[in-house]
Amino acid sequence: MSNEPPTRVTVWGENRVERSDADVRAIYPEGMHETIADAIREHLGGSVEVRTATLDDPQHGLARPLLAATDVLTWWGHLAHDEVRDDVAAAVQQRVLDGMGLVVLHSGHLSKPFTRLMGTSCNLRWREADDRELVWTVSPAHPIARGIPPVFAIERQEMYGEFFDIPPPDELVFISSFTGGEVIRSGCCFLRGKGRVFFFAPGHEHHPVYHHADVRRVIANAVLWAHVDQPCAVDTSTCVESPSGWFDERR
Amino acid sequence: MSNEPPTRVTVWGENRVERSDADVRAIYPEGMHETIADAIREHLGGSVEVRTATLDDPQHGLARPLLAATDVLTWWGHLAHDEVRDDVAAAVQQRVLDGMGLVVLHSGHLSKPFTRLMGTSCNLRWREADDRELVWTVSPAHPIARGIPPVFAIERQEMYGEFFDIPPPDELVFISSFTGGEVIRSGCCFLRGKGRVFFFAPGHEHHPVYHHADVRRVIANAVLWAHVDQPCAVDTSTCVESPSGWFDERR
Amino acid sequence: MSNEPPTRVTVWGENRVERSDADVRAIYPEGMHETIADAIREHLGGSVEVRTATLDDPQHGLARPLLAATDVLTWWGHLAHDEVRDDVAAAVQQRVLDGMGLVVLHSGHLSKPFTRLMGTSCNLRWREADDRELVWTVSPAHPIARGIPPVFAIERQEMYGEFFDIPPPDELVFISSFTGGEVIRSGCCFLRGKGRVFFFAPGHEHHPVYHHADVRRVIANAVLWAHVDQPCAVDTSTCVESPSGWFDERR
Amino acid sequence: MSNEPPTRVTVWGENRVERSDADVRAIYPEGMHETIADAIREHLGGSVEVRTATLDDPQHGLARPLLAATDVLTWWGHLAHDEVRDDVAAAVQQRVLDGMGLVVLHSGHLSKPFTRLMGTSCNLRWREADDRELVWTVSPAHPIARGIPPVFAIERQEMYGEFFDIPPPDELVFISSFTGGEVIRSGCCFLRGKGRVFFFAPGHEHHPVYHHADVRRVIANAVLWAHVDQPCAVDTSTCVESPSGWFDERR
Repeated sequence: MSNEPPTRVTVWGENRVERSDADVRAIYPEGMHETIADAIREHLGGSVEVRTATLDDPQHGLARPLLAATDVLTWWGHLAHDEVRDDVAAAVQQRVLDGMGLVVLHSGHLSKPFTRLMGTSCNLRWREADDRELVWTVSPAHPIARGIPPVFAIERQEMYGEFFDIPPPDELVFISSFTGGEVIRSGCCFLRGKGRVFFFAPGHEHHPVYHHADVRRVIANAVLWAHVDQPCAVDTSTCVESPSGWFDERR
Repeated sequence: MSNEPPTRVTVWGENRVERSDADVRAIYPEGMHETIADAIREHLGGSVEVRTATLDDPQHGLARPLLAATDVLTWWGHLAHDEVRDDVAAAVQQRVLDGMGLVVLHSGHLSKPFTRLMGTSCNLRWREADDRELVWTVSPAHPIARGIPPVFAIERQEMYGEFFDIPPPDELVFISSFTGGEVIRSGCCFLRGKGRVFFFAPGHEHHPVYHHADVRRVIANAVLWAHVDQPCAVDTSTCVESPSGWFDERR
Repeated sequence: MSNEPPTRVTVWGENRVERSDADVRAIYPEGMHETIADAIREHLGGSVEVRTATLDDPQHGLARPLLAATDVLTWWGHLAHDEVRDDVAAAVQQRVLDGMGLVVLHSGHLSKPFTRLMGTSCNLRWREADDRELVWTVSPAHPIARGIPPVFAIERQEMYGEFFDIPPPDELVFISSFTGGEVIRSGCCFLRGKGRVFFFAPGHEHHPVYHHADVRRVIANAVLWAHVDQPCAVDTSTCVESPSGWFDERR
Repeated sequence: MSNEPPTRVTVWGENRVERSDADVRAIYPEGMHETIADAIREHLGGSVEVRTATLDDPQHGLARPLLAATDVLTWWGHLAHDEVRDDVAAAVQQRVLDGMGLVVLHSGHLSKPFTRLMGTSCNLRWREADDRELVWTVSPAHPIARGIPPVFAIERQEMYGEFFDIPPPDELVFISSFTGGEVIRSGCCFLRGKGRVFFFAPGHEHHPVYHHADVRRVIANAVLWAHVDQPCAVDTSTCVESPSGWFDERR
């Protein structure tokens, strides 16, 4: 296994609030995307190649060749979802269906790529306050729970609560509770086309969530899980007309 | 239970090939939608009110008030998917998320409402030939399998085969095989928002599939299952800001 | 639909602590099983026939003819799980596989019928204290959530928390949180054989949980959902040798 | 990743028919278990340590220390399921719940460890004949489908068909069809406790199925997938009483 090429990861960040808000910049001086990229490098080392891309890069840093060279894309956005070009969002959706992994973080639940892939509103309850979030592992055999304790606390967090309007997750890994009593399915796996999607709820920009050791490990585990390293050769680009015995002739 | 108001069903049909192709018209003189509507009335009698709507009706027969007055919509379309207006497709998607049932038949797998709700390509393999389709029940406790035998045959059918690019069904009720050896997940349930979606693969226009007793019963069962008669009062129209204790004050 | 025969419900209760503990008897003077039976009658009226059975009845009130005449069985037990005869537990498991519904309440998670059907330990965390339990609906389109608010509170409850060692539920309807911050998948559907199983976590004997309006409605909804009124005629009693074309000859 | 210790695999075989039936012995001279072990070594090389064990070994080769030193167990048995000791079957079940992977092959569907873990009869239809089995990939993003074509053929096989009385798989990877028209969910994943279970239907002893290149690769993929290399530290051995704040004190 040691000769496998590194997983090519693109960490995408909106990178606006980090520049406009001094409080956020104090927590994430290089932008949240750099902190997230570091978390992935810290855990996965030489088995990944991590680059970052942001909203204000040309084509949001997601031009076709760059997407084609990405095995796993992580996504954090918040107030500027509408500024993401529709054609880029469609290209991200298509890349997932073609086998790319997608790890959607926190407010990315309303991003165009995620809502297009889910088909639902992805709305949820929220509250900007100082709730403590407890993240509970409900699928201890899942690769994304590897090395994660049965429960971990994020001392100050924005509340994200049910009903969270997503399709029933194909695998539910984490459930969070908040001081106010709310709960949310906070770690959710979806298989879509030849790709894999993971949503992870923690991550408010005003709290140092991406510096939290367990959060960092979950993100790294999710990148590994989302990487489909040898997608099955099914053709999903069109409806394939298939005369009787097509699979015999193929051999 | 006997005092419940009838389930309001709208049977939507493209109704083009029935008019342009004499062979199809011979099988479905009033259009496929009328045959499907009759199947639902036959099985559900006074517990349903069934109306039909077609592509060439104003707003495709799916103006907002009509959609709002529909509990379950069934959908058959084929060659004219592109002629369905985007705003109508979006309205159908939204109605499902708000609690309407949707039963998608055969070539409807590529319809705009279905692909928007699924988030995937919904492509599959196909062959127009004279395969026999065998429909196998793999979830005998499911309401949609009520009264359906362990297997039933449709003597001549278009082949629809895997890989069928849909999300993993939330419940898989039927799997079909074809003379050529192909298989497809042919009866698939999806929960989306406050609504329920069922896809059923049988139904080629050149064969009398909607006259088949078991197919008719499956469709009627699906209408019953898809009807959410008292949707939970969650608000999914937006992300609801929720101050601490909001649910106590609500009482 | 109005001519259907009533659903035959057996409400099973251990009925020990109600007799030995005056505090419990004050809450449930006739035993918890009678309170639960009343909840079902209250909501489902003439569409059900409800009888009760208890541990100390002959064969626990679950002799073969009685089981055979039961469409849905509800189960509450706690300290005397071990006193349930193995042959009766096996018969209940088999009846579920043959198409009976089973609604398992609270401490019934460790009952023999449930653990046999799940194949896992069904262990969980617990605390006898005065936590408030909040029950959140995470599947608003599910029949068991019919008429249930997005969240409801049980003011004093025993805590039941994750990790709850059950198979991933086939459908997850409710998640609960507790004052202490714990969460549990508290409303879980399982399809097993030709039967349906629902686990519902609320229900400590020292609190009047089964007098709670929403809890009562959930139980009634669960009885309706669990009733497989016309099980598919698959034969699961043995591995059936099936010569080629067996399904053609059957017709 | 290259410094990880090898995955410890035990390949268990009944190893009776290979000794009693010359036809089987001609296909599997060392027993099926050795052929299966070779398939795993062939694909996974130095990343696994593979040993074999058989029914007639002391304690079936599954004494507690051996089980404890097994990360993934594969299981093939057929006519002698009843000879497997109940205490050994219970120990295998417990080891899975504690984090061992289990890959159940073909007629192992009726083995004691599998039926205990499933909670259902696991019965299915069958026919000893010369059907061709076609194995279709329905989850192209799944690790077990890595490198597997969209469809592959096993030229002569025993038919295993629906209804297959298992819980709905947590992930469905393969569906097979047979010459006679039957289908079966032939590649099924289950998460149970802290362990993972995969059932794979191909494998009749009278046909050289375990010499088939794609079958061998599926088994190797399944071993990798089933290995939980760092199980989450939840305690499922008992119901853990947990005073308020237990998780804070733990830190």
